[in-house]
Amino acid sequence: MKLDHTHDVTATSWLASANDGATPFPLQNLPFGIFRRAGTAEAFRGGVALGDRVIDLSALSEANCLSGLAAQAARACMQPALNDFFAMGADAWRALRHALFELFSAQHRSGRSGPVTEALGRCLVPQADAEYGLPARIGDYTDFYTSIDHARNIVKLLRPDGTLAPNFQWMPVAYHGRVSSIGIAGQQVRRPYGQRLAEGARSPEVGPCARLDYELELGIFIGVGNGQGTRIPVGSAEQHVFGLCLLNDWSARDIQAWESVPLGPFLAKNFATTLSPWIVTMDALAPYRAAWARSPDEPQPLAYLSTPALAADGAIDIQLEVALETENHRRDGLPATRLSRTSFRHQYWTVAQMVTHHTVGGCNLRSGDLLGSGTISGPAQDEAGALIELTQAGRSPIRLATGETRAFLDDGDVVVMTGWCERPGYARIGFGENRGEVLPASWD
Amino acid sequence: MKLDHTHDVTATSWLASANDGATPFPLQNLPFGIFRRAGTAEAFRGGVALGDRVIDLSALSEANCLSGLAAQAARACMQPALNDFFAMGADAWRALRHALFELFSAQHRSGRSGPVTEALGRCLVPQADAEYGLPARIGDYTDFYTSIDHARNIVKLLRPDGTLAPNFQWMPVAYHGRVSSIGIAGQQVRRPYGQRLAEGARSPEVGPCARLDYELELGIFIGVGNGQGTRIPVGSAEQHVFGLCLLNDWSARDIQAWESVPLGPFLAKNFATTLSPWIVTMDALAPYRAAWARSPDEPQPLAYLSTPALAADGAIDIQLEVALETENHRRDGLPATRLSRTSFRHQYWTVAQMVTHHTVGGCNLRSGDLLGSGTISGPAQDEAGALIELTQAGRSPIRLATGETRAFLDDGDVVVMTGWCERPGYARIGFGENRGEVLPASWD
Repeated sequence: MKLDHTHDVTATSWLASANDGATPFPLQNLPFGIFRRAGTAEAFRGGVALGDRVIDLSALSEANCLSGLAAQAARACMQPALNDFFAMGADAWRALRHALFELFSAQHRSGRSGPVTEALGRCLVPQADAEYGLPARIGDYTDFYTSIDHARNIVKLLRPDGTLAPNFQWMPVAYHGRVSSIGIAGQQVRRPYGQRLAEGARSPEVGPCARLDYELELGIFIGVGNGQGTRIPVGSAEQHVFGLCLLNDWSARDIQAWESVPLGPFLAKNFATTLSPWIVTMDALAPYRAAWARSPDEPQPLAYLSTPALAADGAIDIQLEVALETENHRRDGLPATRLSRTSFRHQYWTVAQMVTHHTVGGCNLRSGDLLGSGTISGPAQDEAGALIELTQAGRSPIRLATGETRAFLDDGDVVVMTGWCERPGYARIGFGENRGEVLPASWD
Repeated sequence: MKLDHTHDVTATSWLASANDGATPFPLQNLPFGIFRRAGTAEAFRGGVALGDRVIDLSALSEANCLSGLAAQAARACMQPALNDFFAMGADAWRALRHALFELFSAQHRSGRSGPVTEALGRCLVPQADAEYGLPARIGDYTDFYTSIDHARNIVKLLRPDGTLAPNFQWMPVAYHGRVSSIGIAGQQVRRPYGQRLAEGARSPEVGPCARLDYELELGIFIGVGNGQGTRIPVGSAEQHVFGLCLLNDWSARDIQAWESVPLGPFLAKNFATTLSPWIVTMDALAPYRAAWARSPDEPQPLAYLSTPALAADGAIDIQLEVALETENHRRDGLPATRLSRTSFRHQYWTVAQMVTHHTVGGCNLRSGDLLGSGTISGPAQDEAGALIELTQAGRSPIRLATGETRAFLDDGDVVVMTGWCERPGYARIGFGENRGEVLPASWD
């Protein structure tokens, strides 16, 4: 992963809020999303987060502040989805990120004439005034299963005599998920009805899910796809990835347990999936790469899933946290209770391996396709990315700051996911928040 | 299901080829698709099959031969996908089908002036000159598993001590499939590479699929969707369905066996799915409905999956056939060898039950979404809808008319699916052909 001046921790912006150490969006980040001013009939369009503002890429294009490939890239972002921008490829993504870095850096302001800086200022929309759309028209959504700690936790809970499925250590296992129900942070998710088999019962019944859960994941946006019948080699797989966001894979555990054999989860997962609005680019993540290793007593990846580069920096150290905000938190003015904290660096399979395995049989990925990393759980008990793990399948409810307990999610609960990267000598960059609220079930 | 004059077996068209008893597309059928003249740069647009012609709905709209709702519906078909037409709902679908029936019926010609008939004639394109596109932009594709004979065959083959999963008789089991790799009849499908575990081996290897198979299914196009968090009651579910086509769910059995636990099939299925070009409407299928029954010693469907109307005509008697054409058939000028024949009336769950179950948890369907019925196998051995069943997982290869044998598909093989409905006193209507060819594997 090549580092350049956009990763320089000393770089600052002429926009003061970008230099506040608390912002997830310093000049070194520049994540992409789709937005408009909330409550207006404006068209949704591409934007980039900087401090407490959104850089409006439509306005920036019209202000003629860019040239060359960066200008072309910004024009592709004037639409209500970033698919065309994604399809332009890594050179275009980098050209636009670098151009934005220059335009909004403190150094460059001093050399600029007043009118240009004013023009740039008019391209900034307060994030407080913005609402967000899905970053892309998602053609297909694939959800992986790549945390070995999560997989082992689940096996222990559900099949006390069970062992990890033998394929887990040989391939990034995955299944296809539902596109239509994917929403953006702030999504209100109705508790699903569904069939479930009560313990000891001989026949199932239909009712509201009684074991509603979240799953902490990262969403991986495909930038450039591949042709049907071709594959993406692992060595170049990351060139096909635009960036990452936070993803909540809402899960109805009682429905899942009854429906999933033999074809996997279906209604237990397809009622909703929530994404954070900002996609942090692979370029912005470059300083936070981490070594990736497979211990010698484990199966080593087959040749098509292996490159020497993987060992050096195949992993990414993304810090992740899940918190729960109940109605009582809001009543008492308490911040959400933290449920767990972990890092993506523990994941058993890398982003590149997921992309490569997905295409090894010739399945075509398209610009804007979404991959979920699968639940991200670390090795310790308090690093688990889902309530089913944290509460031992509901047997050990968690106590919240309000004094309440939770085995699974209640109506009115808000799940809050956050993510960030930090490393000595580099800026702290963040993903922002991924909030989602549980609404009561309704049969009508 | 209400029958009307469009189902009258005595109705004929002024287009002679529509009255030929051998055509799958008499006046009583009028299936919808997307086409253009092959080898041209024409825009893809909506069309309706009649005899050996395509009624060009763009040309028909521009010729001002329609009025009212039918004219609006035809205008919605001027695009390269039928999604907007689907979203108009059953009244619009019926208005256009009825208007086409009138315009092209023999009775109506006699009352028409020469210029009008000439104008209609100019809206006809020979099917021999046409190429087809996918009928809709498919947002999500869901594949069901609803033939109990198929499910029992598979269980017997793969787990000799196994029994049917307990959920099978309580719900139409399903999983999400891949949209990007869905193609139209004539699709050439590259044999996928993938991981598989050889019998007795301790570690998997990667190689070209050695057990490539087809699955005979029907594709179900959603006409009108539902809002997220709402459900579609079974009594009105068919009003959400536009119609049916043939579907080949290509399957890599060796890859499937190794990857599918615990999350279901993924790369084993997502390299290709092939659809026939014409969607036969639910209205056209009305005369061929059949009684649907659950034997008293089996679980009865839960209330949300049950209406009194189901018993009377919940099933549809669609005759289905699979044939195989190898390179030797073509060399010797032999017709494809028939492998099996069955009917959709044996299916354990109905179209309405699939739609309703899909939405019981609030998952939103959208216009143009595709459901696969799951493999359609009848109760007899020669009614099985996949080679894995017909050949006992490859142990009893099939002998073809050429003298060749097949355990699974070879490179160059063409799978040919056909479907039709017939009933005394009614016309014979067909789905046309769904052909797909196997290309050799390629790693480069």
